[in-house]
Amino acid sequence: MSNIITLGRQFGSGGREIGKRLADALGYTYYDKEIIGLIAEKSGLSEEFIASRDEERIIANYSITMGRTFIAPMVNFSDNVFIEQTKILKEIAQKGNCIIVGRCADYILREQDPFKIFIMGSDMKKKIDRCYEKEPADKDKSQKEIEKKINEIDKSRAKYYDYYTDRKWGALSNYNIALDSSRIPIKTAVEVIKMAYEKR
Amino acid sequence: MSNIITLGRQFGSGGREIGKRLADALGYTYYDKEIIGLIAEKSGLSEEFIASRDEERIIANYSITMGRTFIAPMVNFSDNVFIEQTKILKEIAQKGNCIIVGRCADYILREQDPFKIFIMGSDMKKKIDRCYEKEPADKDKSQKEIEKKINEIDKSRAKYYDYYTDRKWGALSNYNIALDSSRIPIKTAVEVIKMAYEKR
Repeated sequence: MSNIITLGRQFGSGGREIGKRLADALGYTYYDKEIIGLIAEKSGLSEEFIASRDEERIIANYSITMGRTFIAPMVNFSDNVFIEQTKILKEIAQKGNCIIVGRCADYILREQDPFKIFIMGSDMKKKIDRCYEKEPADKDKSQKEIEKKINEIDKSRAKYYDYYTDRKWGALSNYNIALDSSRIPIKTAVEVIKMAYEKR
Repeated sequence: MSNIITLGRQFGSGGREIGKRLADALGYTYYDKEIIGLIAEKSGLSEEFIASRDEERIIANYSITMGRTFIAPMVNFSDNVFIEQTKILKEIAQKGNCIIVGRCADYILREQDPFKIFIMGSDMKKKIDRCYEKEPADKDKSQKEIEKKINEIDKSRAKYYDYYTDRKWGALSNYNIALDSSRIPIKTAVEVIKMAYEKR
């Protein structure tokens, strides 16, 4: 039985924290932004470049205006980064005992049949509050600005996933367990997923 | 906090069994086909008529041919049955401590903010095996016939849900927890949902 866990998440849902805590509870290695460093090491591409092509930044400079002319959003796919990332994820998977966040890992590792988690947040207000609490850069933003950011990041993640896979981001059929962190507290979510994983 | 649980499910996923066991574990009342009898009692409509307009039978006589002429599937919505069902569900909800399976209950009771579960099954072979095991009428059918039946019933449930609500059947955003019973055994699923519900 595979000992690889993948985790997709809506922005602001606490998916990252759930993944980290779950990794601690299981004694697994946690991979999220760490993957950027690994790709840089392997490929020679700069971390800045790789980060700028990461799933959250695919739609960059969301709405650009030059003078009075509106220019459509830039779309920053880099197939090279994706190919390097695929290699790294397959290496990570070979070692097993890991949780990998985002980055189409559920699709890339489909032959290893990972246990697939999705964390969503049904309550926008709670996601905004979480950003105020967890993201220093958001302290001075209005609620409206943060809501816009949340929607744009999720849109970018979806675009990235739908571009590189034959699946749909956030579609139930891609996951083995999905939890709404607006209704189920993070501590409970970790316990629940751990039980589902260990008694699967 | 609401003490109403709603449960949507793919056909063959064991959602019914999970709902029943969860109701037992929580000491809640379980409502599924029981609702048909309640509607009949209240409305004077016959149980046969109500059952024929139930969510699984909306697409009836899936493909009809008369002589050589193919006739499109019949669609059997009955708004009267739905209106009576809505009244019954609201009465049930007032008593609380209940699990209601299917029938757009998550939507009808949205103001009561129920805890919303969805059970899916990612492995068609396992769903077919479950039909062989649980449905006496399926004993003599081929795997292909059962697969067709599973797909048609889910299609009917989706059509029913999408017709009467402004939501999409099986879309993650409608649920607080979703489990894949092909990956998580029924016994575990019940424990996991119970924990998520009690520690929400």
